[in-house]
Amino acid sequence: MTHPTRSDLERFFSPKSVAIIGASQDLITISGQPLSHLINHGYTGKLYPVNPRYQDILGHKCYPSLADVPEVPDLALILINAARVADMLEQCGKKGVPYVIIFSSGFSEMGGEGVALQKRLTDIARQYNIGVVGPNCQGMMNVADKCYAGFGSVFFAGYPAGRVSMVSQSGGFGFSVLSLCSEGGLAFRQMVTTGNEIGVSSLEFIEYFVRDPHTDIIACYLEGARDVARIPEIGLKALDAGKPILMWKVGNTDEGQKAAASHTANLGGAMALYKAAFKQSGIIQVDDIQDVTDYGRMFRCGKLPKGNRIAMITVSGGAGILMTDECVSRGMRLASLAPETVVKLKEFVPSFGSLANPVDVTAAIFNDLALIRRTLQAIVDDPGVDCIALLNASLQGEIATKIAAEIIAIADTTDKPIACAWSARDVMARDAYAALDEARIPHYKSPVRCGRAFAAMSGYAEAKRRIDAQRGEQALVLKKTQSKQMLVGRTTDVAEYEAKKVLAEYGIRVTQEALASTRDAALVIAKKIGYPVAIKVQSADISHKTEAKAVKLGLNSDAELSVAYDEVLANAKAYNAKAKIDGVLVQEMLRGGTEAILGITNDPLFGPAVMFGLGGIFAEIMKDVSFRLAPVTPAMAREMIAEIKGYPLLAGARGRAHADIDGLADAIVKLSALAVDLKDQVAELDINPLFVMERGKGVVAADALIRPKVQD
Amino acid sequence: MTHPTRSDLERFFSPKSVAIIGASQDLITISGQPLSHLINHGYTGKLYPVNPRYQDILGHKCYPSLADVPEVPDLALILINAARVADMLEQCGKKGVPYVIIFSSGFSEMGGEGVALQKRLTDIARQYNIGVVGPNCQGMMNVADKCYAGFGSVFFAGYPAGRVSMVSQSGGFGFSVLSLCSEGGLAFRQMVTTGNEIGVSSLEFIEYFVRDPHTDIIACYLEGARDVARIPEIGLKALDAGKPILMWKVGNTDEGQKAAASHTANLGGAMALYKAAFKQSGIIQVDDIQDVTDYGRMFRCGKLPKGNRIAMITVSGGAGILMTDECVSRGMRLASLAPETVVKLKEFVPSFGSLANPVDVTAAIFNDLALIRRTLQAIVDDPGVDCIALLNASLQGEIATKIAAEIIAIADTTDKPIACAWSARDVMARDAYAALDEARIPHYKSPVRCGRAFAAMSGYAEAKRRIDAQRGEQALVLKKTQSKQMLVGRTTDVAEYEAKKVLAEYGIRVTQEALASTRDAALVIAKKIGYPVAIKVQSADISHKTEAKAVKLGLNSDAELSVAYDEVLANAKAYNAKAKIDGVLVQEMLRGGTEAILGITNDPLFGPAVMFGLGGIFAEIMKDVSFRLAPVTPAMAREMIAEIKGYPLLAGARGRAHADIDGLADAIVKLSALAVDLKDQVAELDINPLFVMERGKGVVAADALIRPKVQD
Repeated sequence: MTHPTRSDLERFFSPKSVAIIGASQDLITISGQPLSHLINHGYTGKLYPVNPRYQDILGHKCYPSLADVPEVPDLALILINAARVADMLEQCGKKGVPYVIIFSSGFSEMGGEGVALQKRLTDIARQYNIGVVGPNCQGMMNVADKCYAGFGSVFFAGYPAGRVSMVSQSGGFGFSVLSLCSEGGLAFRQMVTTGNEIGVSSLEFIEYFVRDPHTDIIACYLEGARDVARIPEIGLKALDAGKPILMWKVGNTDEGQKAAASHTANLGGAMALYKAAFKQSGIIQVDDIQDVTDYGRMFRCGKLPKGNRIAMITVSGGAGILMTDECVSRGMRLASLAPETVVKLKEFVPSFGSLANPVDVTAAIFNDLALIRRTLQAIVDDPGVDCIALLNASLQGEIATKIAAEIIAIADTTDKPIACAWSARDVMARDAYAALDEARIPHYKSPVRCGRAFAAMSGYAEAKRRIDAQRGEQALVLKKTQSKQMLVGRTTDVAEYEAKKVLAEYGIRVTQEALASTRDAALVIAKKIGYPVAIKVQSADISHKTEAKAVKLGLNSDAELSVAYDEVLANAKAYNAKAKIDGVLVQEMLRGGTEAILGITNDPLFGPAVMFGLGGIFAEIMKDVSFRLAPVTPAMAREMIAEIKGYPLLAGARGRAHADIDGLADAIVKLSALAVDLKDQVAELDINPLFVMERGKGVVAADALIRPKVQD
Repeated sequence: MTHPTRSDLERFFSPKSVAIIGASQDLITISGQPLSHLINHGYTGKLYPVNPRYQDILGHKCYPSLADVPEVPDLALILINAARVADMLEQCGKKGVPYVIIFSSGFSEMGGEGVALQKRLTDIARQYNIGVVGPNCQGMMNVADKCYAGFGSVFFAGYPAGRVSMVSQSGGFGFSVLSLCSEGGLAFRQMVTTGNEIGVSSLEFIEYFVRDPHTDIIACYLEGARDVARIPEIGLKALDAGKPILMWKVGNTDEGQKAAASHTANLGGAMALYKAAFKQSGIIQVDDIQDVTDYGRMFRCGKLPKGNRIAMITVSGGAGILMTDECVSRGMRLASLAPETVVKLKEFVPSFGSLANPVDVTAAIFNDLALIRRTLQAIVDDPGVDCIALLNASLQGEIATKIAAEIIAIADTTDKPIACAWSARDVMARDAYAALDEARIPHYKSPVRCGRAFAAMSGYAEAKRRIDAQRGEQALVLKKTQSKQMLVGRTTDVAEYEAKKVLAEYGIRVTQEALASTRDAALVIAKKIGYPVAIKVQSADISHKTEAKAVKLGLNSDAELSVAYDEVLANAKAYNAKAKIDGVLVQEMLRGGTEAILGITNDPLFGPAVMFGLGGIFAEIMKDVSFRLAPVTPAMAREMIAEIKGYPLLAGARGRAHADIDGLADAIVKLSALAVDLKDQVAELDINPLFVMERGKGVVAADALIRPKVQD
């Protein structure tokens, strides 16, 4: 588990005093840069360089040791050789320094001895309750308070202050995001890089940004983290605070999975669980610097659309097509304009324009500025429109400035988000762009980027509505004892008949069945169930029963059953002579229904997650599955069901009966409750197949497998 | 069919003289701009403004009519009211003007009367063999020859000349692409907008660019075109000429399909056929201005990788992860470095760096410039590496300039493409970036964009290798007469038993079957085929036999067959009392095999295309299908098979037998030959299901439907 670290992070980002341990007079080196940057960018607190080799650096008295520093600094920067870092951190601890950034490399990223060195740092940090950032990082930059406490190319320039705060596990790359976003018109408040992240974690920084009154938008560059199980909790806090989180999760290429018994665990690679965590807490995934800039600028407008219907006003048909493609493919809809709106537009839009959405006002706009104002006002007033895009092609110069003024005037009067796709080069529309920026009206060089940003905002707003609506819903909690007792101490895979008893205890319906130890017993059971039946040899040593030919389906009579009974046992023995056989399971044959798969994967970091998909082939070959971290509420379960591509199959496509989606959602919720209750006993669980019957007829687990969690 | 237009397009792009018909002294208006732009940008040919209202414009003598112009201009620009355009075009024809750009709007884009007006223009253009560009366009810009013959904001600035040529159906948007690409470092040779495209088409312009010795890279913004059937031919010409085509096809959101009888036609919306055409001729799809810029700059390097293995050298781990994600998800592979390379690297890469690909030389590069040179040389020399990315974070200033020089020195000695992800802002690394540009070494602000551009180039190189290797292969040609005769004049859907006779004539194996008109006849047929059998009522009036309950499967005996025979006939009559029944088809029941679907859609513009997918659900719900325009060679057929997501099912996944992929490819090739031979008779064809048996056992068509092409 993650160690709770300090949370008074305003002290970290706005320290009253900073000690620079290992400061150098060679200002271009890593150890020389931080002091120089802090001074050059106008840091207003106290600076204490520490280095026995110097009397002073850049006019600041240099102290021979940290002990000599005349006060307890809020922040210490450690810029010395890896081998000496631990001792220095201990000195910080003894002095009572609350926050330390360790820049030095040579720890776990090196492997070997570095791992042990890093472990020592972790221990010291805990002992003294030091909020450590790093090691192997490039520091922090609080642009707003002019605290540039780091090194790297980006620190040689200054940046405008904004209301975006970011944490990045990559140092060099993280700061280049700040630099390029700033170039692209998105200003940051603060940026911190966490490197090996032994102390304050990325998620803890995000949690702080949610509290920080000066932060509106949060960004994160994440490779991986220890405390990922907290993502949903922190994501929901940010959602409540109205602060979108732009999450850039990298390392998405699964380099082959661990050996897993179940399909669920095979499909539930780390990325699937990250995505589930983001989805269930409204966190927005981004894939490039441009996304951070573009989405950030969109959210900066401070408005959220009430629905996903967009209207466009364009002076060029081509751009309208492009933006429609982008918005529709990302889940938005083209608003249908109300008849009254069309009547209004007809009064002034030229006859060779278009009155349907996208509304094409054509180049006639050059002759009549009132055209854009009246059109925009008519669209804003349409109750079927949630947000509006203006596609202004390359309009430039004076007319551009005038049009920007018209847009701003109307935007000020509405809470519907308005943004522009405007392709004029910066030098050709400087005044127009500056006015839009001042009014926080986002503008983009390409309709594609504008559409993408709209879709990101619309998706976020939709997630917020959806999640808010679910807040009242409680997750089902079940506490059962039999299954727990049965699973304690188990080290091998649990065979079907026992696994299904576990399901049954949690209220998930399973096939009628019983275990027979003799052929006669099998006949009695079959009689009770009614033919046709299936039989399956049960043995913890034979997980792949079909491969072992230890299964027979569709047996129609006593005669067929008798023959088959002997055959499956013989096959099982031939497959594995040493297998301990528990008996032969005699089972009802299900008719009809759609084959689905449900499962649990209990991740060491995320904890239990639930998976849903259709029939084995859909899940395994098409990877058409959905995941959520447990607990899963009924609304979340219905989302999981609706989100797979094969959903139409359950919803009555191809002339099928409508499947029992309520029953399926109920089973998912129960499985989630099981996953939570048995999180210390179950490592993986597959229900495969689960038959989803017609509406009102529920679901039935036809086979199941449990891999127990082996205690260390 | 498309009318062949003039092809001496060098005369269009580099006219010796231009008449500007409707030129205005109000230089800011649409009709005033072109003359003014031509003069301001330094056009060196002769200019003839034509307008009876003026004596001269901008010092150029103004002619009262075209007839008065003292020579035949190479190009005339028509800038007058739509109603008068046709007469003026006729005057151009009479004078013998070879090329005319019609800027005026008010034609088919308006509907109604505009359509008739446009038809007249088309007729006049044909009559006089005028190469018309437009109407409803914004003209042309030949940057290299300073011929700025158009209007719009973009024309008010000048641009550097490069070797990219582009055609765009959108005027306003097209020119903004030129402007923004130029800002992004990609210079154009020429750009033309075609608007309603009644004369010279986008594809004809592309064909010209393939011939143009001054064009290296071709770009196109396409909404739709009449002559799309020529895409593969022109794409292959460009591939031969080594000129990549960056194709921006817009209008991708299918707004509901036409009513089609077959799955194939339902799935084969226009976009599916465009994509197929692009794929089979190595055309690269782009989705945004940034793609055009980024891919264009990558191709500008003039080298192509020999394989898809990329190696990365980075100073920051984060960027390496990002770029790996991007490249691998787009079909590239991380090169495995040879042991000798690793030995070399060990000599000088710092111990806390990484010797595996991505090679991390760490910030140590700041202390030792030779490090980057030696590392890059070692990687270039590795035979397992096809292309190399340098991830330089935000390196800036003097060291950036030095590192750029090292990279350039080595790039000059190798034919492996080298590119950089380099995040320093322009002002911070001006010299380094300029040197790289001069040496045509692409550099990108973000590793994601760099990876994407590498993947585009790698995909293009792979397509070129693949298509070149297929050139020797002839498409199968079949000429059959019976089927053609049977289909001529048919207007209703062709029932299964007749459709399968068509398939059989083209060599595609179908189920053993025969049509019975009486119950006794059915019994005789079943005896011959052997039980179990299926029976299906055959009627052109009952296309959905299953829905009509006119099908019975798995009949095991004479008794079962007799009962079922009466039942299906009764059901068919209950379903449609007026249906004309051809008989009852008695058919073998197939065992085993994987269900697939093959089909033909005969598009009015593209002509016949062939589709492949797995079982109905995969195709219909998951839309997991592949298309190719006919004719399809065996190699193309194998690509179609391997390209669907469900391919592992055929290749032996889930313990299945390996399916007969050769037999399947053979059936696709035969179906393609059928599609070509019967292109005037068949509108749509589905084989659904087609059973793909185990390797060596071929494929069998179990059901089929043909919708005849009804002649106008």
